[in-house]
Amino acid sequence: MPPPLTPVITVFERSPDCGTGLARDMRVRWALEEVGQRYEVRPVSFGAMKEPAHRALQPFGQIPTYEEGALALFESGAIVLHIAEHHAGLLPEEPNARARAIAWMFAALNTVEPPILEHQNAVLLEADKSWHDARLPLLEDRIRERLGELADRLGNVDWLDGAFSAGDLMMVSVLLRLRESGLLEEYSSLCAYVARGKARAAYKRAFAAQLALFLGKPPAGW
Amino acid sequence: MPPPLTPVITVFERSPDCGTGLARDMRVRWALEEVGQRYEVRPVSFGAMKEPAHRALQPFGQIPTYEEGALALFESGAIVLHIAEHHAGLLPEEPNARARAIAWMFAALNTVEPPILEHQNAVLLEADKSWHDARLPLLEDRIRERLGELADRLGNVDWLDGAFSAGDLMMVSVLLRLRESGLLEEYSSLCAYVARGKARAAYKRAFAAQLALFLGKPPAGW
Repeated sequence: MPPPLTPVITVFERSPDCGTGLARDMRVRWALEEVGQRYEVRPVSFGAMKEPAHRALQPFGQIPTYEEGALALFESGAIVLHIAEHHAGLLPEEPNARARAIAWMFAALNTVEPPILEHQNAVLLEADKSWHDARLPLLEDRIRERLGELADRLGNVDWLDGAFSAGDLMMVSVLLRLRESGLLEEYSSLCAYVARGKARAAYKRAFAAQLALFLGKPPAGW
Repeated sequence: MPPPLTPVITVFERSPDCGTGLARDMRVRWALEEVGQRYEVRPVSFGAMKEPAHRALQPFGQIPTYEEGALALFESGAIVLHIAEHHAGLLPEEPNARARAIAWMFAALNTVEPPILEHQNAVLLEADKSWHDARLPLLEDRIRERLGELADRLGNVDWLDGAFSAGDLMMVSVLLRLRESGLLEEYSSLCAYVARGKARAAYKRAFAAQLALFLGKPPAGW
């Protein structure tokens, strides 16, 4: 059998975020839409995700994965970078600007997202613990430190370093996880930054596609 | 003035890890040693790290940064990737294997390191809290889940995907942060994996250099 020409990504069969676009396949969908690459989705149940067949693709039993011919990848950061390297539109051509855009991808995933994940774990996994209420302000302050630094760097420009890049795609995606915390609203420039990301046609198409899957109907145009 | 030909990295003037190699400049030093690239270090004090001059290089007021001619980068993951892309020795040449090695870098930084950082925050920032002792087992179990999955994938081979790569460099660096937790010792194959990383000549040279800085003397051969 010849390898598929269209990339296939795995997504939650029924996303725990109820189609609000916080699952990590959204980052990959958005990147694919930005570069105009068609893709197919293969929904995976929570049970199947932890089975050997899926773990062969994703050792940690998560989504998304990305298959394109003989290539199988995991980690949304790596997948977005792969897409960005193989299509125009998500990384600058000038080598130094390209390296800086990639640095912002890592900053999103390894500097800004960890305190957000820690906060999310407290809300999702420790809500019934005696320390929950007392701990939350500490976690919020750790996030505020990062948001303040990010807002200082962003200043009053539209994107982190020149034109919109994979770095912005990843940073906006990470900041979106703060939605229910109310913390983003303390930084008006970051709210506007996230809003600019969500206003992009590619984001909207990706969002519609993952919501349609959750609601059980294909998006218009499929 | 012509741009410097030798890359310059910033490091802690006096590392809070007391020269045990856990500061993130170690990841960059190791990568530079693997590819045989000479480099210079510029120590930065805790105070200077939070000043505008350093934040212009590193918006979050951290180390390391990397300057090479007109290029200024931050985020150890991005710096290691940049080094790996511009020298032989840290990424396979075959494109799919190269993409998979990069995926392991992201897995180290965005899947394996976050629960380790959460545990570290509990130890460093919440040791005086009433919940400290009760919470630690929860955090340890979150780490064990990842370690078990990683050990399953590694199996009985030396490195995560073929030859040693930037993915292994980053994963070993992340696992080293578990040293004082005792958790790594529950997974003999991961202990051996980390030991293989530490046994590399490049690791040893990088470790000696950062320790020498902490101890206030240059390593032999400088």
